[in-house]
Amino acid sequence: MTEQRTTEHRTTGEPAAGELPAGRQFTRRRLLGTAGAAGAAGLVVGGAGGAFGAATLRDEPAALASVGATGVPFRDGAHQAGITTPQQARGHLVAFDLTAGQTRKSVAALLRRWSATAEQLIGGRLETGDDQIAHDAGPNSLTVTFGFGGSLFPKTGLEALAPQALAPLPPFSADALDPARSNGDLWVQIGSDDPLVAFHALRVLQKAAGDTARVRWQMNGFNRTPGATPRPMTSRNLMGQVDGTNNPQPTDPDFDARIFVPAGGTARSPQWMAGGSYAVVRRIRMLLDSWDHLSVERQEKVIGRRKSDGSPLSGGTETTPVDLDKRDAQGAPAIAGDAHIRVAAPASNGGAAMLRRPFSYHDGIGSDGAPDAGLLFVCWQADPQRGFVPVQRKLDRGDGLSRFLRHESSALFAVPGAPGPGEYVGQRLLES
Amino acid sequence: MTEQRTTEHRTTGEPAAGELPAGRQFTRRRLLGTAGAAGAAGLVVGGAGGAFGAATLRDEPAALASVGATGVPFRDGAHQAGITTPQQARGHLVAFDLTAGQTRKSVAALLRRWSATAEQLIGGRLETGDDQIAHDAGPNSLTVTFGFGGSLFPKTGLEALAPQALAPLPPFSADALDPARSNGDLWVQIGSDDPLVAFHALRVLQKAAGDTARVRWQMNGFNRTPGATPRPMTSRNLMGQVDGTNNPQPTDPDFDARIFVPAGGTARSPQWMAGGSYAVVRRIRMLLDSWDHLSVERQEKVIGRRKSDGSPLSGGTETTPVDLDKRDAQGAPAIAGDAHIRVAAPASNGGAAMLRRPFSYHDGIGSDGAPDAGLLFVCWQADPQRGFVPVQRKLDRGDGLSRFLRHESSALFAVPGAPGPGEYVGQRLLES
Repeated sequence: MTEQRTTEHRTTGEPAAGELPAGRQFTRRRLLGTAGAAGAAGLVVGGAGGAFGAATLRDEPAALASVGATGVPFRDGAHQAGITTPQQARGHLVAFDLTAGQTRKSVAALLRRWSATAEQLIGGRLETGDDQIAHDAGPNSLTVTFGFGGSLFPKTGLEALAPQALAPLPPFSADALDPARSNGDLWVQIGSDDPLVAFHALRVLQKAAGDTARVRWQMNGFNRTPGATPRPMTSRNLMGQVDGTNNPQPTDPDFDARIFVPAGGTARSPQWMAGGSYAVVRRIRMLLDSWDHLSVERQEKVIGRRKSDGSPLSGGTETTPVDLDKRDAQGAPAIAGDAHIRVAAPASNGGAAMLRRPFSYHDGIGSDGAPDAGLLFVCWQADPQRGFVPVQRKLDRGDGLSRFLRHESSALFAVPGAPGPGEYVGQRLLES
Repeated sequence: MTEQRTTEHRTTGEPAAGELPAGRQFTRRRLLGTAGAAGAAGLVVGGAGGAFGAATLRDEPAALASVGATGVPFRDGAHQAGITTPQQARGHLVAFDLTAGQTRKSVAALLRRWSATAEQLIGGRLETGDDQIAHDAGPNSLTVTFGFGGSLFPKTGLEALAPQALAPLPPFSADALDPARSNGDLWVQIGSDDPLVAFHALRVLQKAAGDTARVRWQMNGFNRTPGATPRPMTSRNLMGQVDGTNNPQPTDPDFDARIFVPAGGTARSPQWMAGGSYAVVRRIRMLLDSWDHLSVERQEKVIGRRKSDGSPLSGGTETTPVDLDKRDAQGAPAIAGDAHIRVAAPASNGGAAMLRRPFSYHDGIGSDGAPDAGLLFVCWQADPQRGFVPVQRKLDRGDGLSRFLRHESSALFAVPGAPGPGEYVGQRLLES
């Protein structure tokens, strides 16, 4: 799996320091800065750089040095960045609500402003209002991803264009949702391998919202530091479990059909969503004090994988397909009936699949004295009815892991495709 | 300055992968893992690895690849790690209070347990209760630093050994302190370049507190990601200012006298504090919405340095000594009378100096709707009366920056020297 990821990357050749790769818009100052570290060769132009793109020094000398120099284009291909981009070390999720009296037109102006700002941030230059916070850093795989919540459409006279796929998620029995931290008219996902670059983007985009929209909720998350582990590997969550092994891979033949709305739209997704995806965002608190009371062996049975290396209890290595029929020497199922990977497996859910791309969060100690920590779960799919909803319905009923989790907030956003040349994100909705 | 830092590091030569550097206690499994990334050469044995030890690929090929493989010894030299160790990307500050009925003996048992646990965590092996959360990572510059609050001494019959230097800090006019997040009987500072390694240490050490001590408060912070900037540089805070330029350097002739208690103790520090230091910990919220209303030029006048590169407004580069007498073409002082660097300068404070080693924090949005973000200010000195107190007294009165800051919590801890062979941290106090 890690091999697949690595081969997705296309890096430039080895231009001399100071030579501008075609099409890049970094200022000369910035470029000279990054060139000192890794040469302009460190700039990844394929849209898939970042933490998990970092290979070992032995194999690929420039990779780890390019943490700061790795850029993910804002306007490249059919999809917004931040969906198939490898997980970044730092993330901010922010939902905004429109202030009173906003119109389709003022929302269009906001998205135009936001798109320009995001593109400038990623390019390393702000035309106005640059407070120079991140002046010395490279792009650090910065991505900014914009989405629309269902509540946006009636407020802006766009009901007729609201996707059916954006209908509210059904309730689940284990939900303990805080409405103030759920939903929202607009959503921005910011990711970067450097926390100051991410914070800078958050501040600048929030300022650019002006009087049009106010922050409804904001959550901060993180993933491993690039280079923390000796080789690129699947992330671990705060329970310590390797998490994401069975994620669909961009090289899978049905990847695009599962994750992205096709050109022309579908019955449940209008044309303006072509190339887009739906993000389900859940703040999932981990009941770590209870979890930590289990032995590692018991934890492994709950998940269905070894904690040390993520290999399934049915045998093999992390990437060995799970054998749900495998029995142990005593004739008992190697993967328990309520093991997380059994209940979540596509085979158990009519093939339903989603691309999980979470951040961990840790906000200190909760009012109950236990860690306020867990997963900012973000998953991507062409239609939540064929992704998150059937899987969560199954997990809600039969997952042994759910005793150790609490879903504290929930949101669903329609994330349109990448803007074309000269376009802003969402233009095909807002000017249709 | 960065050059000075780089030369402080002593790295091993280039042993073949799998060859154990003398004196290291990493398991073979761990070592083989890290060796895959950077060879055992990545292990820094001088006690000064980490973010700011990372040099450019061009100069020092192994440095950036060694993020995960860099180790900071727990038991090395006269001082605990985490004081002169370069700032790490992730940090947890935790204060504990003793539960009722604890004695000098039970506190000694806790410190023995904590010391052993910290040493094992840093060595990559836990003898018992390893939940394998950080199994795949190298040490990532993990440090664990232990301190004693003034309230510990009367609770454990140790009043006679309480340092005079540990007397409560005086109040300052700008203080808006939350007692629940201030002070504490015991203090643990955890730093690592990887958030999962730091979180793991936090969980394990908290568990090791058992029934002896309960968490009083906990704060999470961060610094730049190793490799985020093209060259090692002084940190930036969330105001975007280069912060820490004038920090005392270990190469300064009076560094040890200013930062560490000398062998034999002093009038205000008993013998058991030899090699130790005092940590002042302040949660300093930045009023970023007000700050961001200022132009960059106005921000620079408040600080006295250029935002882009940290150079003083009196001219030169970041490391050029500040010329407080310099006047501009109009005859006005180049550094304003209330500029932060003028008021904080040792020359303005009878030579008082401290080693600042902060983390940034960002806990989302406060109840007032503004960012709950700022600095987990940690500073180190041989005696707070010749470090933090006189400087803060001056800043409290005359610093133009203080309008944009709010000190929300405060604590002072006595941090003993490093344990000798076979000793635990604080043994010279607890068994004296």
